[in-house]
Amino acid sequence: MLGKLQIPMIIVNFKTYLEATGEKSVELAKKAEKVSADTKVLIGVAPQFVDIAVVAEAVSIPVFAQHIDPIQPGSHTGHVLAESVKEAGALGTLINHSERQLKLSDINAIIKMTREKSLVSLVCANNPAISASAAALKPEIIAIEPPELIGTGIPVSKAKPEVITDTIRRVREINKKVVILCGAGISHGEDVEAALRLGTQGVLVASGIVKAKDPDRVLREFAEATRI
Amino acid sequence: MLGKLQIPMIIVNFKTYLEATGEKSVELAKKAEKVSADTKVLIGVAPQFVDIAVVAEAVSIPVFAQHIDPIQPGSHTGHVLAESVKEAGALGTLINHSERQLKLSDINAIIKMTREKSLVSLVCANNPAISASAAALKPEIIAIEPPELIGTGIPVSKAKPEVITDTIRRVREINKKVVILCGAGISHGEDVEAALRLGTQGVLVASGIVKAKDPDRVLREFAEATRI
Amino acid sequence: MLGKLQIPMIIVNFKTYLEATGEKSVELAKKAEKVSADTKVLIGVAPQFVDIAVVAEAVSIPVFAQHIDPIQPGSHTGHVLAESVKEAGALGTLINHSERQLKLSDINAIIKMTREKSLVSLVCANNPAISASAAALKPEIIAIEPPELIGTGIPVSKAKPEVITDTIRRVREINKKVVILCGAGISHGEDVEAALRLGTQGVLVASGIVKAKDPDRVLREFAEATRI
Amino acid sequence: MLGKLQIPMIIVNFKTYLEATGEKSVELAKKAEKVSADTKVLIGVAPQFVDIAVVAEAVSIPVFAQHIDPIQPGSHTGHVLAESVKEAGALGTLINHSERQLKLSDINAIIKMTREKSLVSLVCANNPAISASAAALKPEIIAIEPPELIGTGIPVSKAKPEVITDTIRRVREINKKVVILCGAGISHGEDVEAALRLGTQGVLVASGIVKAKDPDRVLREFAEATRI
Repeated sequence: MLGKLQIPMIIVNFKTYLEATGEKSVELAKKAEKVSADTKVLIGVAPQFVDIAVVAEAVSIPVFAQHIDPIQPGSHTGHVLAESVKEAGALGTLINHSERQLKLSDINAIIKMTREKSLVSLVCANNPAISASAAALKPEIIAIEPPELIGTGIPVSKAKPEVITDTIRRVREINKKVVILCGAGISHGEDVEAALRLGTQGVLVASGIVKAKDPDRVLREFAEATRI
Repeated sequence: MLGKLQIPMIIVNFKTYLEATGEKSVELAKKAEKVSADTKVLIGVAPQFVDIAVVAEAVSIPVFAQHIDPIQPGSHTGHVLAESVKEAGALGTLINHSERQLKLSDINAIIKMTREKSLVSLVCANNPAISASAAALKPEIIAIEPPELIGTGIPVSKAKPEVITDTIRRVREINKKVVILCGAGISHGEDVEAALRLGTQGVLVASGIVKAKDPDRVLREFAEATRI
Repeated sequence: MLGKLQIPMIIVNFKTYLEATGEKSVELAKKAEKVSADTKVLIGVAPQFVDIAVVAEAVSIPVFAQHIDPIQPGSHTGHVLAESVKEAGALGTLINHSERQLKLSDINAIIKMTREKSLVSLVCANNPAISASAAALKPEIIAIEPPELIGTGIPVSKAKPEVITDTIRRVREINKKVVILCGAGISHGEDVEAALRLGTQGVLVASGIVKAKDPDRVLREFAEATRI
Repeated sequence: MLGKLQIPMIIVNFKTYLEATGEKSVELAKKAEKVSADTKVLIGVAPQFVDIAVVAEAVSIPVFAQHIDPIQPGSHTGHVLAESVKEAGALGTLINHSERQLKLSDINAIIKMTREKSLVSLVCANNPAISASAAALKPEIIAIEPPELIGTGIPVSKAKPEVITDTIRRVREINKKVVILCGAGISHGEDVEAALRLGTQGVLVASGIVKAKDPDRVLREFAEATRI
């Protein structure tokens, strides 16, 4: 599936922000599409489940689900089916986001399922050990979220380089191919630049774009910063 | 919110059946709408999250989410926000379906949330004690699923009446107003008729409709059976 | 089972405090036993799973598990079996403590199981609606924890009486027999006295005893305050 | 911690079997201790939480908890604290047993916690990918449970060798040091022998011992089979 994707990439997680719900999810996705077209940098979006269909209808950039469940079609009321998000237009799915953490066996089952359904798997991992462990499951993309960069407000561009490079090294010992995104500490263009310089191949961002006064401007800044 | 609803009612849970996913969810919802228009019986549908928006766009009968999470807008990647399902066009939501059972405190939080957001709450309860307990939380609708009727293949029309009437009695001791649906043992028109005769005010059905060779015919049979 | 218990009662939850782990759990339980013997007030203790056997061996006051799982004997590695806590000497179990909240169907299954095994069920409920809902499941004891008294530091003795009396009223509408304990806002003897005066039949306490400099003195103060 | 352990080893999981609850857990542990003393083969036992203290008091062979929670001392009613199982006499703990599966981040947190508390970590993993992933977290012992050997009734001694050797290879690519146990397909001495010949360093067994008519005889058969 990754054939459809290129690096570097910017994936924007819409979370359950009202600023990216319903009609606003479509508006934001369109801005992302425009910046992507202008800058030739791949930008993907991860809207809420209920917004996947309308977003995927409105734009042609990659759309990710925020989660899918390790289920087959059938009697699973209230769960999220791989087939459904795919038919709604999703190209892939986030897995194990720090706000939706999963059992190890479910992460493995979902990655397996994405392979069978030709969906792109993007696993989130919030420390070096977990990143290495997730890499062993052979997803296509992994978003590393060093705890030093989550919540502490330290941007990648100001952090000790080892915070990123140690995680990359541990992931690469186990998996040479997985695309590695930086999933924390990204607020400014210089953070995107720093993340790529340290060896990641893109970024997973959320509030930095969704909550920005001018998401268009920030998206453009991020996209241009990938051209290092 | 119940002002918008009338009894008796038939709610069709699409679960994660492929027969009611994506385009097929819209087709089935349109059949339900047609039967509802022809028979003047209220029929609602509960499609998967990703299909809520397209279904609600296509039909004007009540649409329910299959579940929502007890969260506020914000950082809840992979969760289902009340505001989002509402903006997508849902009138209400199933809560605590036997395939998506919830903590007592979450059921209470979600019911409270549906009141604040003017969504209809439909709580599922799979035995008399749980039905009474759920009724104490004052949802607008409760779907009782007597264990004697789940999985055993015994239809309501052949079951001992006490299986239904005991549960109704326990619910009514606690809550005079809640609408009571029969959520198990419904395969034929005579089951719908039996359920209503025993004191419920409608039915919650799934495979009986979704997996039927001719859902239109069965929906019509069910709707006509409510006219007892 | 309640035949063995008397009201008013004081139940001390040892949580996972180091001050009440291992040897210290036995020491604290012995203090509780001594105060109970001196004051003729029923005092029970709820140590950690691993300490139930040694505590129950050392004292003859009622011992509660902090939780049991809704399982039968068999293949349930890492779960807590009713039979095991009973053989270890427990008289009953806490259920649905706010730090170990359960699915509605599991609360019901566990209460049913306690009846079958002759264990006392003590369900915790952290607001009036949940208290009413829990009462419908007919446990033997319910510990109400008004949100106004949790974490806010407001003691029962200073709170608006309605905070307690409204919950009691809602519980009593549904269940005349259940013993009602006050499970929050208890730091001093006057709080115990206030809780009983407002209509509860005892208290469920934790840090107020376990973390006290002199648990013996505080236990004695609480016990004497029940004689109003 | 592994200094205290030797390979090959046999670990007996008591699950929640009544045959290994309370007094019977002590009896079975004593049999294991006797066989271990007679054969000089390391045999460990994993009783239920409530039985850890009495078992550890009665025998001097290694005792494992069946699970611990990723918590610190404090307000965690109904959870299992590392410090408590250690004070009760446990040498280590099972983690992520297939009957008590955990979030990836919790497995990592618990392994980290076992290191800090000098407890032995034994992670269960029920397919090759999950085994590799778990190995990346650097536990001291891993129990591999090939799905071909679980529930299908195929014993290790009759299975295709690759079922075991492929998993070992994937684990060893990531972790040279971890002790590998075979955790499925063990019913007879020849299965133990086959498991060791294929490269594992011991076995994790349950019903094969606990439910045996003569556990002493089977334990002895298993222990002698390790001398290949």
